[in-house]
Amino acid sequence: MLAPSNPVKTAPTENPSERDLANIRHAIFQAEQGLSERGVPIGAALVRSDGVVIGVGRNRRVQQNSAILHGETDCLNNIGRLPASVYKDCTTLSPCSMCSGTMVLFGIKRCVMGENDTFVGARGADALFASAGVEVVNLNLDSCKKLMNEFIERFPEVWNEDIGEEDSK
Amino acid sequence: MLAPSNPVKTAPTENPSERDLANIRHAIFQAEQGLSERGVPIGAALVRSDGVVIGVGRNRRVQQNSAILHGETDCLNNIGRLPASVYKDCTTLSPCSMCSGTMVLFGIKRCVMGENDTFVGARGADALFASAGVEVVNLNLDSCKKLMNEFIERFPEVWNEDIGEEDSK
Repeated sequence: MLAPSNPVKTAPTENPSERDLANIRHAIFQAEQGLSERGVPIGAALVRSDGVVIGVGRNRRVQQNSAILHGETDCLNNIGRLPASVYKDCTTLSPCSMCSGTMVLFGIKRCVMGENDTFVGARGADALFASAGVEVVNLNLDSCKKLMNEFIERFPEVWNEDIGEEDSK
Repeated sequence: MLAPSNPVKTAPTENPSERDLANIRHAIFQAEQGLSERGVPIGAALVRSDGVVIGVGRNRRVQQNSAILHGETDCLNNIGRLPASVYKDCTTLSPCSMCSGTMVLFGIKRCVMGENDTFVGARGADALFASAGVEVVNLNLDSCKKLMNEFIERFPEVWNEDIGEEDSK
């Protein structure tokens, strides 16, 4: 059984690959762009196993007034409709339940996150990954933590609304 | 541990309430509207515990060329941004991993599905619900099964694409 009150937290990955460190930059660029729009600074990229970046996206809750456009969902929305075989790797922050479920639905088999200190994949997300055989890499990057912490400090009510944790009003 | 290859399947609920049977009609109406648009006939409604329908939505993969607009996600997108306390009940078909994760993220505590014969909440969705304490009611309605079966028979490639099961090309 999953334990929502005690989520699995993926430990930092030792000696991450150059490719993962390079690809996470697409997601970080999206996150920075989001912050410049006063949005939640979380980005995502869908990267094929041969290194081709299929698409990118960022949380656009604030910008689009949407509750469902998180990093991964915006990324998949931007890409449009693809056959199931195309979804392979995803580069992201510690994904929430919605984005984790989305990745499992599409059969994305690998998740590279920038860090999971500011947000532990809530309510069983990491355990859902484990059960679905999704490989999780945690790059544990200080730059990602800094970006998120600055945002959470400045706009705590937007962040809380985004992760469904408590009332924003 | 969840077992993706052997998903939990919620049994039909005996003696469902009049309210659930009434509210599922909002979702069915959306599903029928989707079918008339040649879309995947799955609808959803978010209903507050006092019976007020907060919003409705339907799968719009085909209509909007979007991979993320399923019943529940379209419903939540249509509603816009709400404080976390508002999300309470959701009326839906057997939800996929993405929609189940979405419901868990927003703390929706109750799921009323029309049926789960045509699609068993794939890859651990029902188990995710169980772990997050979401009450699941299965109305097991023939009208819902008929709607889905007709669609799957007519457009199998769109349905397979929608649930990420196999290539549509």
